[in-house]
Amino acid sequence: MAPQAADPQAASPVRVALLGCGNVGGALAELLMARQDDIAARTGIRLELVGIAVADIDRSRPSSIPGALFETDSAALAVRSDVDIVVELIGGLHPAHELIEAALRAGKPVVTANKAVLALSGAQLADLAAAHGVDLLYEAAVAGAIPVIRPLRESLAGEQIVRVMGIVNGTTNFILTRMEEDGVDFDDALAEAQRLGLAERDPTADVEGHDAAAKAAILAALAFGSDVVDVDVHREGISGIAAADVAYANRLGYSVKLLAIAELVDGGPELSVRVHPAMVPKSHPLASVRGAFNAVFIEGAVSGELMLYGRGAGGGPTASAVLGDLVDAARNLRAGAPGPAPKRTSITVRAQSELRSAFYLSMDVADRPGVLAAVAKVFGDHQVSIRAMEQVGLADEARLIFLTHLAREGDLLATLDDLRLLRAVDRVSGVLRVIGVGEE
Amino acid sequence: MAPQAADPQAASPVRVALLGCGNVGGALAELLMARQDDIAARTGIRLELVGIAVADIDRSRPSSIPGALFETDSAALAVRSDVDIVVELIGGLHPAHELIEAALRAGKPVVTANKAVLALSGAQLADLAAAHGVDLLYEAAVAGAIPVIRPLRESLAGEQIVRVMGIVNGTTNFILTRMEEDGVDFDDALAEAQRLGLAERDPTADVEGHDAAAKAAILAALAFGSDVVDVDVHREGISGIAAADVAYANRLGYSVKLLAIAELVDGGPELSVRVHPAMVPKSHPLASVRGAFNAVFIEGAVSGELMLYGRGAGGGPTASAVLGDLVDAARNLRAGAPGPAPKRTSITVRAQSELRSAFYLSMDVADRPGVLAAVAKVFGDHQVSIRAMEQVGLADEARLIFLTHLAREGDLLATLDDLRLLRAVDRVSGVLRVIGVGEE
Repeated sequence: MAPQAADPQAASPVRVALLGCGNVGGALAELLMARQDDIAARTGIRLELVGIAVADIDRSRPSSIPGALFETDSAALAVRSDVDIVVELIGGLHPAHELIEAALRAGKPVVTANKAVLALSGAQLADLAAAHGVDLLYEAAVAGAIPVIRPLRESLAGEQIVRVMGIVNGTTNFILTRMEEDGVDFDDALAEAQRLGLAERDPTADVEGHDAAAKAAILAALAFGSDVVDVDVHREGISGIAAADVAYANRLGYSVKLLAIAELVDGGPELSVRVHPAMVPKSHPLASVRGAFNAVFIEGAVSGELMLYGRGAGGGPTASAVLGDLVDAARNLRAGAPGPAPKRTSITVRAQSELRSAFYLSMDVADRPGVLAAVAKVFGDHQVSIRAMEQVGLADEARLIFLTHLAREGDLLATLDDLRLLRAVDRVSGVLRVIGVGEE
Repeated sequence: MAPQAADPQAASPVRVALLGCGNVGGALAELLMARQDDIAARTGIRLELVGIAVADIDRSRPSSIPGALFETDSAALAVRSDVDIVVELIGGLHPAHELIEAALRAGKPVVTANKAVLALSGAQLADLAAAHGVDLLYEAAVAGAIPVIRPLRESLAGEQIVRVMGIVNGTTNFILTRMEEDGVDFDDALAEAQRLGLAERDPTADVEGHDAAAKAAILAALAFGSDVVDVDVHREGISGIAAADVAYANRLGYSVKLLAIAELVDGGPELSVRVHPAMVPKSHPLASVRGAFNAVFIEGAVSGELMLYGRGAGGGPTASAVLGDLVDAARNLRAGAPGPAPKRTSITVRAQSELRSAFYLSMDVADRPGVLAAVAKVFGDHQVSIRAMEQVGLADEARLIFLTHLAREGDLLATLDDLRLLRAVDRVSGVLRVIGVGEE
């Protein structure tokens, strides 16, 4: 586009301090400089980067970022008097938490993508921001470039949300997509994700659902005003899922997805916040979310079903979401009023064992008469009703696959415990919840 | 949820006038009263309905709406001194346009779902709102409850948008889904949509793409700052699509969708705004949008691919979107500053004939030697290169199906004209653009 003449309204710039200049921070600094004129022409607001705090000032950075901006004293920069807005992109709990807190106490709006801090202390920091009359914005903390936070905070402000289900971890979705589309094992799909830079060398945070649990806590806070913190989110990862289970789910018309769920149990008032793999019917929009993409599916009492889909990670997409927040914060600063704070209500979380789900189970058993009867008796003893069963022969063993009707989670766990005690049961290999059974 | 105590901040309510009380207006009035306390508790703003203008005051209305609110003088209500915000849900061009204009001139923010007015006069009304320092919000005008307008206006404020492609008409998507999933003809699918209340008795506005063209104009204005009006949008409907073409597209791995597209041609600076049916690869997220659902797919230079999906119509979902805007307008009114106005830039629209697309064509021809050579020569004469061809026998006729490489639209049209002149060509039955060919 043609260069734009500076807008007279933009004469007094909004001065931005950036804390952290890694993957996302570097992309933001470059994007901010590249889009500065266009943003000024469109919004009348000129964003000016006045300082970038980094740990190592000698590391090589993109040449488009002026070297004079870099400094090492992040605590001083966060509260400096010539700074209007602070962007925190250091990540991790410390010192990020302390820096965000100091900036808010100094009356500066904060934009962050830090899911760890928000999942642990989001409610407390939101209160602090409100007390100081400034914004705390974090669109990039959940699902990268996808506008998820803003719709929950603004567009749906007049709506009673009933359920939020998200595919919010690109690493695990990539792995599950590879397992489904190409039949590879978990270990091979993980190794491929690591080769492609989609998974860390230590993949625990992703594959065991810790990352998704932090995002589930943030979504629950926004959608329901809950103060659930990430460590209290019921969490199951995907490392125990076998290619055979994914293939079987596929044949039954389901895709296996790691879901972060926050929902009113039976319409409320109790809440459930949890992360676990689930079988999603292929007709459901979440089933079509493939590879490293993310999506958040929202059910409102009046608006019905919504889904927001896009790139959940990557420096560019995440920086784009941070920049959207930054423009918003600058606009609110100029208007002299922060944006709407997320609601806060007192809401009880229902114990996981008291929830009801339909389940898929696969188990390897000895292939001899009477085994099925023994297995079926265990289900019956715990009031778990079987909807469908299939037996697949495997040499002198057999694999039994069960789909249950809706069952109390506690009853299902007791069933699993007792099944594992049966001598004829070699192992219970796959346990997956099934989405979309018995609802409505 | 438990009833909430009135918030002290909410002591001075924001007074709302509603113009029109049909399907959406009635749903909004009921929703507003049901959610009033919760909105006050969450936002500190109490929304109070102070008048509802209707044409016929004697018509029966939901009993939850106090009868004293109804009146017939919409022009007086729109500018009344005790009204803070005007919601226009009458629809159609007149008197809606005049009422919106009068309210804005009186310094009142306006929330509307009126795509006809916005597609024709959106730029002029946005200027008027900006001149009076008030909001003109219309999230519900495109894709009902789906938050589309707000992300384009706010979340992506720092982003260069490259392309917006939407399935924005539920009626035609329902018809095309029935044709694809059940093999029914267009006429039968339309009759079913009419029985279900998804299509009007006169379905022209939907099936010929007029409704989608209005939404395309609105999306183009928001994403690119264009002032294209709906009647200038290139528009093709779906009434000429045969079940056989949908089935053939399906076998090739495509779903046929009516798309509203606004995009920078070859990355810019020229724009294309158009509505036409297209073959969308099944791996594309838009292909999974079934039935009466809507979705808008947005490609940003940095944020990558985004899709926003949900219910595009219906009183409840649309009213929910209007209520979100209403909360936003009330918040901005209290803050004393309107939200960000859409950008306006001078942007040239590329002529449709100068665009390049890949095409699917089906034609019935006499089944005799030399016909294929004659047909192929016509393609060659116009520099349209064939990527694939298939012949299906039909008694003494044959059906020829062609997929082309990227071709200039003007060349393709000239090809069609010449093909129709060939004596051996009985008719050209299907012409569809193919999405995703030749890009990247």
